[in-house]
Amino acid sequence: MTALSFETVVPVRYQDFDALGHVNNAVYATYLEEARTAFVADELGLSTQDISMVVAHLELDFDAPIVDASEVTIGVAPTKIGEKSFTLTYEIETGGRVVSRGETVQVWITEDGNATPIPDEVRGTLTPLIHGSPTTGD
Amino acid sequence: MTALSFETVVPVRYQDFDALGHVNNAVYATYLEEARTAFVADELGLSTQDISMVVAHLELDFDAPIVDASEVTIGVAPTKIGEKSFTLTYEIETGGRVVSRGETVQVWITEDGNATPIPDEVRGTLTPLIHGSPTTGD
Amino acid sequence: MTALSFETVVPVRYQDFDALGHVNNAVYATYLEEARTAFVADELGLSTQDISMVVAHLELDFDAPIVDASEVTIGVAPTKIGEKSFTLTYEIETGGRVVSRGETVQVWITEDGNATPIPDEVRGTLTPLIHGSPTTGD
Amino acid sequence: MTALSFETVVPVRYQDFDALGHVNNAVYATYLEEARTAFVADELGLSTQDISMVVAHLELDFDAPIVDASEVTIGVAPTKIGEKSFTLTYEIETGGRVVSRGETVQVWITEDGNATPIPDEVRGTLTPLIHGSPTTGD
Repeated sequence: MTALSFETVVPVRYQDFDALGHVNNAVYATYLEEARTAFVADELGLSTQDISMVVAHLELDFDAPIVDASEVTIGVAPTKIGEKSFTLTYEIETGGRVVSRGETVQVWITEDGNATPIPDEVRGTLTPLIHGSPTTGD
Repeated sequence: MTALSFETVVPVRYQDFDALGHVNNAVYATYLEEARTAFVADELGLSTQDISMVVAHLELDFDAPIVDASEVTIGVAPTKIGEKSFTLTYEIETGGRVVSRGETVQVWITEDGNATPIPDEVRGTLTPLIHGSPTTGD
Repeated sequence: MTALSFETVVPVRYQDFDALGHVNNAVYATYLEEARTAFVADELGLSTQDISMVVAHLELDFDAPIVDASEVTIGVAPTKIGEKSFTLTYEIETGGRVVSRGETVQVWITEDGNATPIPDEVRGTLTPLIHGSPTTGD
Repeated sequence: MTALSFETVVPVRYQDFDALGHVNNAVYATYLEEARTAFVADELGLSTQDISMVVAHLELDFDAPIVDASEVTIGVAPTKIGEKSFTLTYEIETGGRVVSRGETVQVWITEDGNATPIPDEVRGTLTPLIHGSPTTGD
C-alpha cells in the first residue's frame, strides 16, 4: 500500500524490461499514465476522450530498479491546485516497497489549446482529495 | 539547431503517436534515452554494456505537442557534475522549434549498485562540455 | 470466453492505441507474448528466465479493430507438437467477440542456440493440452 | 542490401531490446510498419492520414536474433495484388544478413470499414513493382 489515497494496479509486461533486466525508465511514464487515466476516470468521472487537459510537466525519481515484479501498485493524489493547472503525485510500489516517486502537472485547455481555468466542478472534486488535506485525515 | 553542443536525430515512428495524434509523453523519455546513449558513446566513449551508471531522476517540460514530425533533433549537454552524479540537459526540437526540455541525473554505481565517485577520466571529459562553461564559448 | 483452454486477461494501456484510435498491430504481438508467458509459467511450470525456447514464427489475423476495450482476454492452446518445435494458437477476445487469431511456433534450443528435441516432460505436459485432442473433450 | 526493390533504414532504439538482449518480437512488427509507411508514402504517394487500407494479416519468420545492431535495413515489395487486397513482402537485414522475413496483407476499405476494390491508380502503381515481375528485371 502506498501512502496515497487512490491506487491502481498495473501488470508488468515482459516487454517493459530492457536489456539490463530492469523495467525501462520510459515505461514508468506509461505506468503514471495508466494511474492518471484511472484516477481521472474514477475520481473525476472524466474520460481521456473528453480531453480538456494536457500534461505540461513530468518528473520521476528512480530509487530502486523494478526487476522481478509481475505487477506494480501506483498510488495517486492531487497535491496542488492552481487556477489553470493541478499537480498529481505518484508512488510506484512493488514488493512492499516504494521504488519510484513521480509528479505530473496538468493544464486545463480550451479546444484551441490555450490554458483555461479548471472548471468549478473539477476543482470541487479535486480539493478534498489533496494529499495531506485535513479532510482526508492523512 | 538546439542551443546545446551535442545533437542527435531520432526518426519518429508511427507507433510513437497516441490516440490524440500526439507523440505520447512516455516516448519523450525514450527520445532522451536515445540522445543520452549517443552522447555517452560519442562524447564519453562508453557503451551501455559498460553499464556503470543509472538514471536516478528524469524531468520533462512539454511546451507544444509533436504532431506531424518525421524526426526530432535532440540537443544534450552536461549542466552539473557532482561527486557521484552528473546532470544532463536536453532540448527536443522539431519544425525549427524547441517543443520540450528535459533533464536527467545519472549516478555512477559499483557492481553492487552503490553510488561511487565518477571516474576521473569521465569527469575530465565531461567538465569542458558543461553548458555555459567559458571553455565552450557559449 | 475464447474456445481455447487456457486464458489470460491483459489490461489495455492508453499507449497501446495509435493515432487512428485502434490498438496498434505490433501491440497484438505483445498481447500474445503476455499470454504465452502466462501459459508457459502456469501450464509448463517454466519461466522466461529458464529460456530454452525461441519464437521462430508469428502470425496474426486482424478481424476487427480494438477500439474501446479496457482489457482483452487471450485464449491459448498448443495445436501441434513436432520433434523440436511446437505451435501455439491464440484468440484475442474483447466485447464478447474474437477480434484476432494468432499462431506462434516455438523452437527448443540448446545454450548455443541450436534446435534440440523438446524435453520429454514438456512434451508430456503439452500433449494432453492440444486443442481438439480427445482427452480435452473439445 | 535486401533482394527487394524498396528499402528503408530504421535505427534500432535501446528500448527495442528485451531482457535477453534481443530485439523483442513485437518490435519487428513496428519495423515492418515503418517500412510499409515509407513504401506507401514514397511509392504510392499516400499518407497514413489518407487511411483507406487496413492490415488484415501479418506474418514473421525469425531466423536469427537482432543483438548488436544500431539500425536495420528493411526491404519491401508487393508480391500479390487481389481485387480488394494486396500483399507486401519484407526482409529485415542487419550486419549483411537477412535475419527475418515478413508479410502483410492490406485490405482497401471504405469509410465504414467495408472492403472495397483497390483504386485503379494504386493498382497501376503497384503492379510494375511486384517482386519477380518481368518489368522489374528481378
